[in-house]
This record gives sequence, C-alpha cells and structure tokens, in this order.
Amino acid sequence: MNIAVLLFDDFETLDVYGPVEVFGRLSDLYTIKFYSLNGGQIENRHGVSALTEKLEDIKEDLEIFIVPGGMGTRKEVENKLLIDKIKEIATFSKFVLTVCTGSSLLARTGLLDNKTATSNKRAFAWVVTNGANVNWNEKARWTIDDKYYTSSGVSAGIDMTLGFISDRHGIDFARRIAVEIEYNWTEDKDNDTFKVE
Amino acid sequence: MNIAVLLFDDFETLDVYGPVEVFGRLSDLYTIKFYSLNGGQIENRHGVSALTEKLEDIKEDLEIFIVPGGMGTRKEVENKLLIDKIKEIATFSKFVLTVCTGSSLLARTGLLDNKTATSNKRAFAWVVTNGANVNWNEKARWTIDDKYYTSSGVSAGIDMTLGFISDRHGIDFARRIAVEIEYNWTEDKDNDTFKVE
Repeated sequence: MNIAVLLFDDFETLDVYGPVEVFGRLSDLYTIKFYSLNGGQIENRHGVSALTEKLEDIKEDLEIFIVPGGMGTRKEVENKLLIDKIKEIATFSKFVLTVCTGSSLLARTGLLDNKTATSNKRAFAWVVTNGANVNWNEKARWTIDDKYYTSSGVSAGIDMTLGFISDRHGIDFARRIAVEIEYNWTEDKDNDTFKVE
Repeated sequence: MNIAVLLFDDFETLDVYGPVEVFGRLSDLYTIKFYSLNGGQIENRHGVSALTEKLEDIKEDLEIFIVPGGMGTRKEVENKLLIDKIKEIATFSKFVLTVCTGSSLLARTGLLDNKTATSNKRAFAWVVTNGANVNWNEKARWTIDDKYYTSSGVSAGIDMTLGFISDRHGIDFARRIAVEIEYNWTEDKDNDTFKVE
C-alpha cells in the first residue's frame, strides 16, 4: 500500500516518525513518501528538516494519507489552500490517519462531520473548535470511524498505527512489530491513560 | 546544551526522532543539529531523508552526542573513517547517548572498554562482537556509566532520553514531558521487559 505523509512547517516530530517507523518496518507491504503544499524542504522547531514533494503530485490510487499535528496546525487550520487540498486527497484516499492535533486540519475539511474522532488531550479544547459537528471522543486513545483513524497525542500515533496494522494483518503480526521496536504498545484504543484536563 | 545527532544511511527512524522529540520540547535548554561523515542528504529504508552538516564541523564545546542504530550500523562498524571520527567527537563531548545498535559503533572506538553498556535485545549477539572488553548488560532498558548512556532497542531511546532529562532536571520535570507527549514512560532502567532471545 502506498502512503503519503503530509508535512508542514512546525509539524510534531514524533507524530510523523512514530507511524513511519512502524510502517517502514514493513517495506515489502508499505511505501512511504512525504509531501507538503509547495514541496521542498520543510522544517520544525526541533531542528528537523525533511525533503517533500508537492501535494498535487499525489495520485488518486493513494491508499493511506497521514496527517500529523504540532504547533504548525494553529496556523494551518486557516490555510484554505491546504485545507482544500487535504479534503481532496482525503476524499480519494482509501484510509486517512491523523495524529494529535492533525485531526483539527481534517475536521476543517468537514469530512469528520457526524463522525467520531479524537485528538491530543492537552489541546482538546482548541481542537474541538475546528469541528462543531464532529463527535469528539475525549476518552479514546484512538478512534476508527469509516476510513478515518484519529489518535490522541504524539506517541498515541504509534499505538494507532500498530492498531491499523492489527486491523489489516492481525494482532499477532502487530504485536511482533511492537516487540521488534521494543515498544510497550497500548492496545486498548478506547481508554486513554491520559485525560483531558 | 548543544546536541549533535549522528546520521548515516539506513539509520533507524525512531532511534533518532524519539530522542529529538523529547529534547526538542525543551528548545530553551537544548539545540539540536544533525551531522553525517560527509554532510548532505542522508536517507534510510523507511523513505526518510534528512539534511546534515559534516561531522568535522562539530566544535569541541559539544555537550551531547547522539549515536543511533539501524541496519546501517552493520556496514558502518567497518567504516574506519567514521569510527575514528565518532571516537574523536565522543572523547570531547560532555555526554554520549547511544540508541539500539548505535552502541556497536561506540564499542568499536574502544571508549566503552571496561564500561557497562546495552543494546537492542534482538541484535544483542551481533552487537557484543563489536566490543569484547565491554561489560554488556543484557537485562537493562538503558545503562549509565561515566558520561556514556546506552539504550536498548528503538523506543527505549525515548525512555533513556527521559531518564537523561530526569538526571539533569529532576524526575517531576521528565514525567511532565512524558505526559506532554502522552508517552507511557518505562522509568526502570535496570529491568527491560524485552529480553535477549
């Protein structure tokens, strides 16, 4: 399956590279590419820089679209060009996965209306303002509704990705990857140990 | 404190970006830069590319040197130019942190001789061949000996980095970062739940 990861300035490092680590271990099954609105080098406040292609180069046979969070989302929710592009890609993509405040960007497209979603527990009050008609779940570690997977903050993206792998390939397969990366996987998606304050 | 992260082709994604996420949250205290032997764009099999400066540009006032693991280490342990450079930088750096099979590279410099270190539990048998005089600890999640921190596989690098933060700034401070990234921190460095098979 081909994967497109959205990047924008001030994306959250682990929101991106947690899922990339998990999918990247299955390189015979998944191919990962990075994209941004205008292509080129994208940077964040952690000193990370990554080379991207243009979002418009994503083809309609896309299978997985990953939307990370991070401080950059506060600005990007107002970026109509980006939101329109996310809507277009999320519509044809077979699955859409958001991590942390990435669900604020997806909510802005309207595609999460009347669907269940979650986000970072510490940014929850702000995230919900981006989608009045979304069924925001403040208890979940991650949620699944139709083709949309949304996860809680940062490292929850790793848990959700392992959950996605489990849904496609079985739980034993997902558990083996967790052991390979020596990660203590939180398997229960419905009850996050981190709470909205 | 300034941080230099070593990159080489086929580094392990999360070995790098796990610690970067943790230190990156403390941008008023830590500044992160990425380096490789020859500088330029470095890539790995997860489709990740990162821009680097040259290792020779690292100055002697370096405070933290991070050495990740990954499949690339199998080749790089034989790269004398790189091992010599790692030895030079690790010698003047105030602290050296290795993740996963990154300890194989540091072991090759001889600087871990008669010191305690650990590594990925699934690659342990190979890693120990790179340092006959190292006190390899196969039970630890991470180890500290003198200025050298070494951690077990992939996500253990996040645990070790939180441990390093705890050693510098106190455990409450480190726990607060773990909550911010919604990460279930394994605080016990001595007893890894993942075992050498």
